[in-house]
Amino acid sequence: MTFDLHAYIAERREWTDRALDIYLPPAEALPPNLHEAMRYSLFCGGKRLRPILALAGAEAVGGDPLWVLPLACAVECIHTFSLIHDDLPAIDDDALRRGSPTSHVVYGEAMAILAGDALLALAFDLIAECRLHASAERVLDAISMVARASGTRGMVGGQVSDIESEGLTGLNEADISSIHARKTGALLLASLVSGARLCGATRRQEQSLLKYGAQIGLAFQITDDILDLEGDEDKLGKPLGSDLKQDKATYPKLFGLEGSRRLAREACDAALAALADFDGHADPLRALAHYIVERDS
Amino acid sequence: MTFDLHAYIAERREWTDRALDIYLPPAEALPPNLHEAMRYSLFCGGKRLRPILALAGAEAVGGDPLWVLPLACAVECIHTFSLIHDDLPAIDDDALRRGSPTSHVVYGEAMAILAGDALLALAFDLIAECRLHASAERVLDAISMVARASGTRGMVGGQVSDIESEGLTGLNEADISSIHARKTGALLLASLVSGARLCGATRRQEQSLLKYGAQIGLAFQITDDILDLEGDEDKLGKPLGSDLKQDKATYPKLFGLEGSRRLAREACDAALAALADFDGHADPLRALAHYIVERDS
Repeated sequence: MTFDLHAYIAERREWTDRALDIYLPPAEALPPNLHEAMRYSLFCGGKRLRPILALAGAEAVGGDPLWVLPLACAVECIHTFSLIHDDLPAIDDDALRRGSPTSHVVYGEAMAILAGDALLALAFDLIAECRLHASAERVLDAISMVARASGTRGMVGGQVSDIESEGLTGLNEADISSIHARKTGALLLASLVSGARLCGATRRQEQSLLKYGAQIGLAFQITDDILDLEGDEDKLGKPLGSDLKQDKATYPKLFGLEGSRRLAREACDAALAALADFDGHADPLRALAHYIVERDS
Repeated sequence: MTFDLHAYIAERREWTDRALDIYLPPAEALPPNLHEAMRYSLFCGGKRLRPILALAGAEAVGGDPLWVLPLACAVECIHTFSLIHDDLPAIDDDALRRGSPTSHVVYGEAMAILAGDALLALAFDLIAECRLHASAERVLDAISMVARASGTRGMVGGQVSDIESEGLTGLNEADISSIHARKTGALLLASLVSGARLCGATRRQEQSLLKYGAQIGLAFQITDDILDLEGDEDKLGKPLGSDLKQDKATYPKLFGLEGSRRLAREACDAALAALADFDGHADPLRALAHYIVERDS
């Protein structure tokens, strides 16, 4: 494959960052500390994987990615909100994220809670902006998909199950994959499929994208678990071994490192197979599947 | 006026409670503790003022209130989310709400944060349900209105300004009313106007409702401040004097009790005047304006 994923990702990150800068209230608007806290966490070196999936989902079905840029920004706001809240002392109590102090360390707990809340509310206003280029019906579909992926049956529910599973013994693969499919997979999937839906995806195309998305979500999580054991602390921007410390159920704990690497490769292959009916417009998604298992941060 | 507000409110509370029970995931669904926490705070004796405003807004323009019941449930979810988060130790640190222990006291801080988050996400999926009876364009308008009323320029921004104003001297009426217009008023207004928008309100009708809503929002807040000084602790379900204890900027602090009562009555009169062009369909709104300044809890 001659597709230049590095350039593709860099360009879409830049689109997303520029659009986020426009969509977020300026740091000096009332109340300034809130907007500063929102911007601090949003512009803290995120990979922008969810926005890129939203844009690539639009492109895969022949759409113009710029049409779904507000959706791309929205899913990044939701991802950032979840990181801010997960890092709070009452939840994961993390002081570092991507090499920088977390929101509550810089702005205090009250502001961190409220900055997260504000990012979640903003996200739905942003998705509604997609009506400029997509039908109102499809925009409502996207809003529902993203809301469900964020809520009790998605990200928040997965986070609760993850917390409740700490220190539990006897979790099997179904338990672990259920937690991750909700905590991480649901929003990845919703980003991808709602991007495609906004650009007129057929039902058949959506079915294929759902399969692709489920597999890359799995591959993403397994790779995350592996990186927590043997990644590069400088590249990850956080200390290794946090899963071990919290006694979390992980793939390496269940299948060992070699077994986990094999599972990640199989998930990547299954993701590529799901795209068999797509033409070259899906090359970014194909390259992303490889990137997700080969990344080092 | 012969309108029976008591029966009107009781019926709409029951509609809202029944619908919320259906829209919320069952308490036993995975993860059960999360759903139990969401239900605990939602069904904890709230007045359902925001749902009633959404339903009454629909009725005022000749719409069927049942068409906007998902919106009514959504704004109550958002209100409940804000109470759960405001009560957290890092924010107002309140252990009692409506006479019952607050969410973090019962379920712990992590679950309280996440239950609030889940209620906010659910709200936008619920508003999208209004597409069954309203045009998709109008449903998107409602989603934008409610998202903006909840976010940095509305409820969350107002809460931040409120926290930052604690202990400050020299706040004038403009400062106080700006805080309350965002913290409390914005969602009351969005409930009312989006209910009307979903049912085909004209631009002129919306202008009148905006005026009405701004005045009852003001009246509501002044009355809240008065009740915190001289209400009935049993009826309020919380100890008096919490504003004094936190040295908050309040109307009684600025205008005295008599001056505050007069301001509340003037706001009520201005709200009624804004409804001059409406027919009997707006009688519930007229009665609600009186209720808001005369309530005892």
